[in-house]
Amino acid sequence: MDAFSHVPPGFRFHPTDEELVDYYLRKKVALKKIDLDVIKDIDLYKIEPWDLQEQCKIGNEEQNEWYFFSHKDKKYPTGTRTNRATTAGFWKATGRDKPIYVKNCLVGMRKTLVFYRGRAPNGQKSDWIMHEYRLETNEYGAPQVSLCTSACMLPRIQTSDT
Amino acid sequence: MDAFSHVPPGFRFHPTDEELVDYYLRKKVALKKIDLDVIKDIDLYKIEPWDLQEQCKIGNEEQNEWYFFSHKDKKYPTGTRTNRATTAGFWKATGRDKPIYVKNCLVGMRKTLVFYRGRAPNGQKSDWIMHEYRLETNEYGAPQVSLCTSACMLPRIQTSDT
Repeated sequence: MDAFSHVPPGFRFHPTDEELVDYYLRKKVALKKIDLDVIKDIDLYKIEPWDLQEQCKIGNEEQNEWYFFSHKDKKYPTGTRTNRATTAGFWKATGRDKPIYVKNCLVGMRKTLVFYRGRAPNGQKSDWIMHEYRLETNEYGAPQVSLCTSACMLPRIQTSDT
Repeated sequence: MDAFSHVPPGFRFHPTDEELVDYYLRKKVALKKIDLDVIKDIDLYKIEPWDLQEQCKIGNEEQNEWYFFSHKDKKYPTGTRTNRATTAGFWKATGRDKPIYVKNCLVGMRKTLVFYRGRAPNGQKSDWIMHEYRLETNEYGAPQVSLCTSACMLPRIQTSDT
């Protein structure tokens, strides 16, 4: 079934930060139905960034950014540090988190991460970046799910790992 | 009624030339139903470019380009020259028409026009440009309707005529 058959021609998924946090992530965390199954669940720690485009396709749209939900994985069962390592490398936070406001209310935060090949604290910086959005409300307890967007910053999108 | 209530959040109208000609214009000319009433009918000769944004709003979307259908108006009843004058000025073609192909078949042409304030052959060039799409098939006779997109080329969109 093509879930996108009821989106009229010419419409493309170009959501704002506010829509991602306040509609898609909020509904996901509240286990509410999302109109269109446009954002997949992905285990971020089992997938390399260059494989996301295959998993996160939206209809037949040409994309340079990929959207997915990811459940937070703890580095240690009792700790609060988040494990963001894959087989080939790891995601490392960069810069400051950006607050997301809707009508002057803080609804979420956006963290920027860069993918490094190899193992921390070494590793080679790649062109893959990710934004990780989290809710800033404890309406449903501490949310263990975040919404991520990933993109390759090369002038042309990589189509394979090679 | 909000015609856009069934487009999921995050989707925006960013159609390709091919979608404009081969879906929206083709259906319009064939008098077939278009899924979503996203492109209005406008009498191009009775509206100034800076008034289009009010008439051609798509939901609550922030737009910098406006879409509408326009019926061709003849300069003289027996002639083939198209009259593109408004009260404040006129649209003048520039450059070559661009062919629009779908799967290697020519489906339409795109003409680029610039708006001049005043009367031809004088007039002062403005920052408003328009693309006028026409079908290149005579399936339904010579189509008298075209699909137009208009935009202001200023770094920031004009919000009024002043």
